[in-house]
Amino acid sequence: MTTATITTEKEQRCFGGVQGTYTHASAATGTTMRFAVYQPPQAAEGPRPALIYLSGLTCTEENVSTKAGAQRYAAEHGLVFIAPDTSPRGDGVADDPAYDLGVGAGFYVDATREPWAPHYRMYSYIVDELPALLAGRFPIRLDALGITGHSMGGHGALVLGLRNPDRFRSISALAPIVAPTEVPWGHKALAAYLGDDRDAWRRYDACALVRERSHPAAILIDQGEADGFLAEQLRPELFVDACAAGGQALELRRQPGYDHSYYFIASFIGDHIAHHAAILGA
Amino acid sequence: MTTATITTEKEQRCFGGVQGTYTHASAATGTTMRFAVYQPPQAAEGPRPALIYLSGLTCTEENVSTKAGAQRYAAEHGLVFIAPDTSPRGDGVADDPAYDLGVGAGFYVDATREPWAPHYRMYSYIVDELPALLAGRFPIRLDALGITGHSMGGHGALVLGLRNPDRFRSISALAPIVAPTEVPWGHKALAAYLGDDRDAWRRYDACALVRERSHPAAILIDQGEADGFLAEQLRPELFVDACAAGGQALELRRQPGYDHSYYFIASFIGDHIAHHAAILGA
Repeated sequence: MTTATITTEKEQRCFGGVQGTYTHASAATGTTMRFAVYQPPQAAEGPRPALIYLSGLTCTEENVSTKAGAQRYAAEHGLVFIAPDTSPRGDGVADDPAYDLGVGAGFYVDATREPWAPHYRMYSYIVDELPALLAGRFPIRLDALGITGHSMGGHGALVLGLRNPDRFRSISALAPIVAPTEVPWGHKALAAYLGDDRDAWRRYDACALVRERSHPAAILIDQGEADGFLAEQLRPELFVDACAAGGQALELRRQPGYDHSYYFIASFIGDHIAHHAAILGA
Repeated sequence: MTTATITTEKEQRCFGGVQGTYTHASAATGTTMRFAVYQPPQAAEGPRPALIYLSGLTCTEENVSTKAGAQRYAAEHGLVFIAPDTSPRGDGVADDPAYDLGVGAGFYVDATREPWAPHYRMYSYIVDELPALLAGRFPIRLDALGITGHSMGGHGALVLGLRNPDRFRSISALAPIVAPTEVPWGHKALAAYLGDDRDAWRRYDACALVRERSHPAAILIDQGEADGFLAEQLRPELFVDACAAGGQALELRRQPGYDHSYYFIASFIGDHIAHHAAILGA
């Protein structure tokens, strides 16, 4: 194993801490990957619990960093807030003209089909490579790591968290895709990245996973009732049923009037950071 | 006077209130103007104090709405938060290729020189037309209106507030241009919009104004010490001296490590909203 090199693209003071953007050569994806980290003021004194936030379709690490207002809450709780990119990018990376496949739409899977397999390995990147990389450079407690996300990133948070409870001690999601094997966004992405192996699909389906295993910590989900993707793509009621069947503790909060936007995320990210901080001991 | 028509472009729920974008035909500018309004939950019960936020160079009403996180604090204090655009736009509106003149750079003056005079009337727009327009459509107390802004918008807030203390009961600014008659951004804009009439320039210079008149409420200013524009364009020390000479109460807070970005704004907008809420009785 070679020593990983992280390049600082920029760092800016925010709520008494440091908001930074960084790049590194990823072994998992074989590309240069970007991520953002917010270090709260408390991180100057030693390692802190941390929360990985997985973004939705079309996003980079920048959207949540500039639009969610998460830094205020991270500073209150002393939680490091980490925002990876949503896919590999750059020369030689396969893409599709649609917004919901390819660049910006990695779906947090390890692709097994061409042309995606060489670089689209976001599952391994987020579960294995990124935490180890971060812990070597930032004041992060790897034994106190949580995961959350929005939409496609909510799907990622649920799947990665359920499959790796020792790595991710706390889980939450905002307007997540909970059943990709049952909805159009998931059908398209899983077929492209994994082919027609339905067993492989189920390993990336939170509803299928939670029927067979539960996470020790209760899962928090917020879902806007005016979300235009609710009925066709998100379908949180499927996750309620699956959690009941699998014995998973779940708090699903339906929020009247809220849509799928960052105004929704900003309104509830504080509750999610508090949820993770309480479980992680921040 | 005809009844003003306001078109709702979009409305989204945020922190229990409503974040909206609106357009109307402006009499002051002779163009279609856009603005954003955040109505806190308390506004559902009746008129509330309100704060106009003037944005900086290149911005529209959208930047502060999506990046500053102001809605959380506005909801806490029950303050309506209003973000106008920074200039007229559209067909027939004069422009300049530079970022600091023309569209996105109205400097909150009433231009008297061609080609700017026909539409660049942001002073009259913000002081007279917009408050009356808003009060007819939104639950706003016109007797409890404050003004703030960032950079060029901080200049606007100081100038409009000092010249109209009965209209704007409270003033604050983030990294404002305090002395446009003394700095490059101001020289360029004032010369273009007002010609070489130095008396006219001084009516848009906060330092010149505050030496001759004071506002009844203390002014709050935050300034990042790592702001790249600090020494050449912002020069808050000039405003400290001018306030001392004019008897104006001022709290200038120099914030170590902070730059000119929305991360700076987001970190301190809560204190500014609290400042206005306290004076306005929110």
